[in-house]
Amino acid sequence: MVKGVETLNEHQLIKEYFSDIGSGFLDEHDISISVGDDAAVFVSPSGKDTVISVDTSIEGVHFLEYMHASDIAYRTVSIALSDLAACGALPAWFTLALSLNKFDAKWLSDFKIGLKDISNELKIPLIGGDTTKGNISITVQVGGYVDKGKALTRSGAKVGDSIYVTGCIGEASSELDRLKEEVSVKQTHAISSNSNRYTRPKIRFGVGSKLVGIASSAIDISDGLFQDLNHICKSSKVRAKIFIEKIPTFLDAGLSLKDFNRGDDYEIIFTSSHLNKDKIIKISQDEDIKISEIGVIEKGKEVEIISSEGNSLEVSPGYQHF
Amino acid sequence: MVKGVETLNEHQLIKEYFSDIGSGFLDEHDISISVGDDAAVFVSPSGKDTVISVDTSIEGVHFLEYMHASDIAYRTVSIALSDLAACGALPAWFTLALSLNKFDAKWLSDFKIGLKDISNELKIPLIGGDTTKGNISITVQVGGYVDKGKALTRSGAKVGDSIYVTGCIGEASSELDRLKEEVSVKQTHAISSNSNRYTRPKIRFGVGSKLVGIASSAIDISDGLFQDLNHICKSSKVRAKIFIEKIPTFLDAGLSLKDFNRGDDYEIIFTSSHLNKDKIIKISQDEDIKISEIGVIEKGKEVEIISSEGNSLEVSPGYQHF
Repeated sequence: MVKGVETLNEHQLIKEYFSDIGSGFLDEHDISISVGDDAAVFVSPSGKDTVISVDTSIEGVHFLEYMHASDIAYRTVSIALSDLAACGALPAWFTLALSLNKFDAKWLSDFKIGLKDISNELKIPLIGGDTTKGNISITVQVGGYVDKGKALTRSGAKVGDSIYVTGCIGEASSELDRLKEEVSVKQTHAISSNSNRYTRPKIRFGVGSKLVGIASSAIDISDGLFQDLNHICKSSKVRAKIFIEKIPTFLDAGLSLKDFNRGDDYEIIFTSSHLNKDKIIKISQDEDIKISEIGVIEKGKEVEIISSEGNSLEVSPGYQHF
Repeated sequence: MVKGVETLNEHQLIKEYFSDIGSGFLDEHDISISVGDDAAVFVSPSGKDTVISVDTSIEGVHFLEYMHASDIAYRTVSIALSDLAACGALPAWFTLALSLNKFDAKWLSDFKIGLKDISNELKIPLIGGDTTKGNISITVQVGGYVDKGKALTRSGAKVGDSIYVTGCIGEASSELDRLKEEVSVKQTHAISSNSNRYTRPKIRFGVGSKLVGIASSAIDISDGLFQDLNHICKSSKVRAKIFIEKIPTFLDAGLSLKDFNRGDDYEIIFTSSHLNKDKIIKISQDEDIKISEIGVIEKGKEVEIISSEGNSLEVSPGYQHF
């Protein structure tokens, strides 16, 4: 039975809403102690590196108040997982630190649905967390595994490598615009939709894990295509030349330069020797995910964008955190 | 050079304040990729279980605005680590998800000092994190190791076991009162003090790790002695009888029942067979940490507190999260 905010303490809240998310997947990930004790305890598989990442989602920045709580849950866990996919790792578990202003049973029940959805989809359990009273903020820590020494990083791009990107750029930010418009017209909360690339980004684990040994560098797109690619340039000490007409977009009319760089795509940009082209085409076919070659790594620094007329274009910065 | 809030982006902020916290300890914990890539990558030692925990600290709840930023950093990492100590694990790394309303170079520099202090003290590196703009909130994830299958849990207490506690109860909450008074009188920010049990709790890793194989159950005291002990009762399906006069306090006058249960102690309560008494005395001597026997595990449920006159006392609840 759900109790009111006055009597529901943290431990009842955890038991009610967070104690059985993906508990059927604990054994296969060798997790012996999960939600409900001081800490979670697990054994990492031998021959593997453990890969972890952490992401905070804040209302109004990373998700919108009027989004369906199940989508808020799904999205916050997904975007944390995206960093693992960019490393070529497969996910094994996640933890959740949730701050809430007030106890809202309906919101929490919906939130739990989203957690279960992503947990079931990827077969990973929620293994720990913390709940606090405060302005709404959700921090998700994720863990997974990759073959020892094989994690994809930002620093391996080499001069002459081709630059690739998965999926379609700008789809998530278009969905976000549509969501805002829909809610402003209807003056209501959004309905959950499983196919929305903003609220329910599907993380490219299939492609990411198959790129191990093939990609020379990789990063996921959270802040913007050009901005995130620039991290590869900085870490690898190279220049990235991108041909604007080659950037994949789902709009026939194409996107403006600014629209390409709005972020929230959670696609993977990676570099690879042109010798691997056939392998990459096969990965794309096997995973049924579009992979586009959009440019080339050169000597130098930063990202250069070439227009269809062959001119070098100025880029606006992507998402700025502060 | 520190840039202003307008131009400082997340990546510069991470580089400036979070990229070299304990990086000298990466090798000894077999961490190959740390702050600055998509995720952190490490190898868990064979024969060990990995133990992780996560804790969020909110301004006004877990720390005070006018605390020195170095103490805020030290305290938030410490209290997350406390869960590992209660499992008998030794720490290996931590990550930090930091939300800040505004960019404040002085505050961040001070905060970095506290991170370095705890990192150097425990020889653990900061291996990843996230910074977001939002109301101040700090989520710390910690990881460590314990011998395979040996983690101390809440669920192993047995009828007849003795109940022990480390340190002195109520010291941290008294320090908190003093801190509040000091600031209200001087109308200024608090000065950092390394010996303050509220701002700089020393986590009982020495005792915790030596209790592996000796304690039947353990928990750290965050919310209040009786409340946290009650988790052991629930998980172990037993009753805990506590003798009030045996609870260690640094005040000659003793504490009121309520004061014993204010929380923030970050001491360890554990249970162990009376056959282990000599071993526990030796741990106390070796680690130079007071360990007091305060009660006994019986059949039944919940915590029963016995006054010096032998009467059963009513307990007020400890810290309530919602």
